[in-house]
Amino acid sequence: MTIPPDPKRVLIFDTTLRDGEQSPGISLNTAEKLEIAQQLSRLGVDVIEAGFPITSRGDFEAVQEIARNVEGPIVTGLARTHAEDIDAAYQAVRDAERPRIHTFVSTSDIHITHQLQTTREDVEGQARAAVAHARGYLDDVEFSPMDATRADVEFTARVCRIAIEEGATTVNIPDTVGYTMPHEYAAYLRRLYELVPELRDVVLSVHCHDDLGLAVANSFAGVLAGARQVECAVNGIGERAGNASLEEIAMLLHTRQPDVGLHTGIVTTEIARTSRLVSRLTGYPVQPNKAVVGRNAFAHESGIHQDGVLKERTTYEIMDARTVGLEANAIVLGKHSGRHALQQALEDLGFPVSGQALNQAFRRFKEIADRKKQVTAMDLEALVTDELRDDLGAYSLEWFDVEASSRRPPHATVGITTPDGEERTGSFTGDGPVDAIFRAINAAAEADARLREFRVDAVTGGQDALGEVSVVTETGGWTASGQGVSTDILEAAGRAYVRALSTARRRARLDAERAEAQLAQAP
Amino acid sequence: MTIPPDPKRVLIFDTTLRDGEQSPGISLNTAEKLEIAQQLSRLGVDVIEAGFPITSRGDFEAVQEIARNVEGPIVTGLARTHAEDIDAAYQAVRDAERPRIHTFVSTSDIHITHQLQTTREDVEGQARAAVAHARGYLDDVEFSPMDATRADVEFTARVCRIAIEEGATTVNIPDTVGYTMPHEYAAYLRRLYELVPELRDVVLSVHCHDDLGLAVANSFAGVLAGARQVECAVNGIGERAGNASLEEIAMLLHTRQPDVGLHTGIVTTEIARTSRLVSRLTGYPVQPNKAVVGRNAFAHESGIHQDGVLKERTTYEIMDARTVGLEANAIVLGKHSGRHALQQALEDLGFPVSGQALNQAFRRFKEIADRKKQVTAMDLEALVTDELRDDLGAYSLEWFDVEASSRRPPHATVGITTPDGEERTGSFTGDGPVDAIFRAINAAAEADARLREFRVDAVTGGQDALGEVSVVTETGGWTASGQGVSTDILEAAGRAYVRALSTARRRARLDAERAEAQLAQAP
Repeated sequence: MTIPPDPKRVLIFDTTLRDGEQSPGISLNTAEKLEIAQQLSRLGVDVIEAGFPITSRGDFEAVQEIARNVEGPIVTGLARTHAEDIDAAYQAVRDAERPRIHTFVSTSDIHITHQLQTTREDVEGQARAAVAHARGYLDDVEFSPMDATRADVEFTARVCRIAIEEGATTVNIPDTVGYTMPHEYAAYLRRLYELVPELRDVVLSVHCHDDLGLAVANSFAGVLAGARQVECAVNGIGERAGNASLEEIAMLLHTRQPDVGLHTGIVTTEIARTSRLVSRLTGYPVQPNKAVVGRNAFAHESGIHQDGVLKERTTYEIMDARTVGLEANAIVLGKHSGRHALQQALEDLGFPVSGQALNQAFRRFKEIADRKKQVTAMDLEALVTDELRDDLGAYSLEWFDVEASSRRPPHATVGITTPDGEERTGSFTGDGPVDAIFRAINAAAEADARLREFRVDAVTGGQDALGEVSVVTETGGWTASGQGVSTDILEAAGRAYVRALSTARRRARLDAERAEAQLAQAP
Repeated sequence: MTIPPDPKRVLIFDTTLRDGEQSPGISLNTAEKLEIAQQLSRLGVDVIEAGFPITSRGDFEAVQEIARNVEGPIVTGLARTHAEDIDAAYQAVRDAERPRIHTFVSTSDIHITHQLQTTREDVEGQARAAVAHARGYLDDVEFSPMDATRADVEFTARVCRIAIEEGATTVNIPDTVGYTMPHEYAAYLRRLYELVPELRDVVLSVHCHDDLGLAVANSFAGVLAGARQVECAVNGIGERAGNASLEEIAMLLHTRQPDVGLHTGIVTTEIARTSRLVSRLTGYPVQPNKAVVGRNAFAHESGIHQDGVLKERTTYEIMDARTVGLEANAIVLGKHSGRHALQQALEDLGFPVSGQALNQAFRRFKEIADRKKQVTAMDLEALVTDELRDDLGAYSLEWFDVEASSRRPPHATVGITTPDGEERTGSFTGDGPVDAIFRAINAAAEADARLREFRVDAVTGGQDALGEVSVVTETGGWTASGQGVSTDILEAAGRAYVRALSTARRRARLDAERAEAQLAQAP
C-alpha cells in the first residue's frame, strides 16, 4: 500500500475491534466480531484493525476469521515489536485479500523509562527489526511510535525515518493519552514532515484519543496538516474516553467537503445502522446528544428552532438525517409474515440466513410477532444480533417465574441449561425482581457473579418496544458483559445475565491464555 | 460587567438550564432547576443562563427563583429583541446579586430571509433597540448575533458594533448549527476584531454546538483567538447534538494550563457530582466513553495500559480521577444510622434539610437501608433528587403487585393517588411486567400516554444497587420524561411513569401559556 492515487482521499482506518474492544466490560466473541467487520465493510472503511493476535487464541481466531471472510477493506492485526507478535499477526491476517501488519513501540521517554525500562537506542533497534521482519512477510506494513505527542519530536522523527527505511508504508502518529491540542498536533506533524521529508512517500496517519474532548478536532487538524489516514472507532469507543468517532470525522469531511476539498469512501447511509450494531453488541450506549448518531442529533425542541425548520430546513440543520441512514428502515413484518418474507427482510438487512439458522430466527421472530403488532427492521437487527450471541459452551435461560410487589420481597425461580447440557433450577428472594432473577440464576449455575452495571434500552419506540438489557458482572476480579432482547424486561435481564456468565467463563479461559503469552512482560 | 481584571481568566457561562433544557424530552420543574443552579454555583461557574423567561410562566418563575436564591454567579435570562421579551427577562433576573440580560437576533441571511422574513436593516434596528432597552434596566447586557458563523462577517461586525455602541458588555458569537471548524471560527473572530476594534473593550464570548463533534475544539479555538467567555452545558446537553461540554472545556484549560496559560474559576472536584445530578434530573445518560465524566474515562483495560499505569500512573493518565471529584465520596450510612447522621451527610452533600423534608428523606432512607447494606453518597444524591421530583399537582404510585413468568402473560395491579388526591386502582396484562405496570397506571389514571423511551441505570455498583428508571412518554404529540429510583426496577419504573404523567400534565399547561405568548411568531 503506497499513497492512494487520489491525494484528496482520506482513508478511514477502523479500530472498533481492537482499541474499541479494549474498553472495560466489552468482550466480543468471534461471531460478533465478524458481524461488526462485515458491517464495517458495508460502511466502506478502508482498513479494519481486527485485533491484537498475540494476546490470546480468541483474539487470533477472530482476526483470522475476519481476514478469511470479509471482503473489501484491508485487514490488519496489531503487534508489538517482538518477533512472535509479528509472526502471530502475520499468521492471523495472511489469508486476507489485502493483509497488513501494524507494529508499534513507544518513543516517549516516560514510556521508555517507566514501562519499557529500556533506552532510546534500544527502541530504535526494536523499530528497525520489527518493520524489517514484518516486511519480510508483507508489502503493507504500518508503524506507530506510541505516545508520540508526549515524545521528543526529533527522536520520534528518527524512529519514523528508520521505519520508512525498513519499508513501512504507513506511519501513524498516536496521541495515545489524549493530551494534545489541534494547533499543537498540527505543528508536531509539520515538524515531522520537515525532519523526515520521506514521510511524503508514505501515508501519514493520525490516531487520537478523546480524554479532553478533542479527538475529532485533533484528527481533523492532522488531516489538514497532510495526514491521509484517520484511525477511529464507531461511537468513539476505546480505551478510557475512547478514540475519535468514526461517524463524526466522516460527517465532518462530508459536510464541509465544499470548503475542505477532501473525501472518504464512507457510505454515510450505513452510519446509523453501524452505530446501533456496535452499541448493541458491546453494550455501550450512545448518549442522546451524541453528534451524528445520538437519538436527538437531528431533533429540534425549542419553539424558535421548530418554527425555523418548518419554514426552511436549512435554518437549523446542516445535515439531513437520511444521509446517515436514519429514517431509512421501511421494512415492517407482522405475525402473519412467513419464513420467506423473514428471509428476504434479513437478506435486505445484510444477514443472509438459511437452514437451521433461519428456523431458529423464525421461531424467535414468531414469539416476538405474537407480542408486537409490527416488527421493524430495527427489531430484526436486534433479534439477529441477539441470536448471534448464543454460542457453544454457554449457559441458557429456559424459563422463569417471578412474583413482585411493593408489599413483600420479590421471589424468582428459574430453569437454566449449563454449558455441559445439564438442566438445573434455582430459587431466590431479592431486593427487586431483577435481583431475585439474578440470584436465582447464580444459585442454579452455582456461580458467584456480582452485578456491577445494569442497563435497559428500548430497541424501538412504542409501548410494545423490544427492550434490550445489558449487564456487566464481576466474578473474581474479572468483568464480563451480556445482553438480552425481549419485550419482557425480566426475560431480557435473565438472558443478559446468563450470557454474562458465559462471557465470564470465556474470559477466564482467555485470561489463562494471555498469562501464558506473558503479555504484560516488557521486552 | 466589563473585561475581567485578569486577562488570563476565561469565564464559564453555563446554559444547561436554557439551551440544555431545550433538549427533547427534558422538562425540569422549578425545584429541579434551582437544585441544578445551586450545584452550578458550588461548581464555580461565572454565569448561569437560567432560562428564557418570556416563553412561559414556568420558565419565568424558575429564572426568578434562581435569581433570588442562588449566590455567586451572574444570573441571566434570554430574550429576543422584542421589548416584551426584554421586560420579562429583566423582571425575572432583577433580584439577582448580579443580574444580566442576554438578547439575540440572527445575522445570517438564511435566518433573516426564511425565519425572520425581514431585512438586514431591520435586524440592525432590532439589535440597537434591544440593547438600548436592556441597558435601560441593567449595566450588564450580553448580545448574540444568532447563526453568526453562517452570516456575512461584515454585516455581523456592523451589528456587533451597534450592540457595543448601545452598551452591550459581552458580545457572543454563536455557531448555532454546529457548522464551523476551529481554524475557520478563529479566523472569523480575528476578522471581527479587525472590523470592530471596540470588541477589545467588551468580553468576547463563544457558543458552539457539537453537530460535527467540534464544539469543544471550536470553543477552544475561539478562546485562543481572544474570547474570554465560553458558553457551555454540563454533559454537553442542548439542542440536537448539544453544546460544548462544560467539563471538557474546563478540564482542557486546567490540564493544559502550563502550555496555554489560561484558567477558569471551576472547582474541578465538583465536576463528577454536577454531571451525575444533571444526568439524573434530565434523564439524559452519559455514555461510558464520554470524556471526563464517562464511567470509563479513567479506566484502563488492555494489559499493556494496565501494566504501564501500575508502573507509573502518568504513562497512560493525563488527569487524576480525584481532580474531577470521582472516588471522593467517603460517606457511607447503614440501616442503623440515625436521623442526625442522615442530616449531617445530606448537609455535607450540599442539601440542607430539616423539619418535614428531613422526616420524608429519613423515611425513604430507612426503606432503602433495609434493602441495601451500605447507603453511599451517590445513593443519597439519588434519593434526594428523587424526592425533589415530588411536587404538588402530581400523580403518585402507592402500591403495586406483579406476576411475571416466561410461561404466561404478565399481569399488574396498581394503586395511585391523582393530583386531586383521589385514590384509584387499575389492572392490566402487558407484553412484559413493565408494560403491564404502565398500562395498569394508564388505566388507573385514565391516561392515554404511550411509552417512547425507557432507560434503567444502576446509580451505584453492586448487586444491591439502586436502579434509576427514566421514561419518555408521548401524550397527544407532546413528550414528557420522568425518573424513579428504587432497588426494585418495577417500583422505579412505576414511579418514573407517574412522574412522566405529571410532567405531561405540566407541559400541557406550559404549552397553553406559550401559545398565548406567541413565541413562534416572528417580530
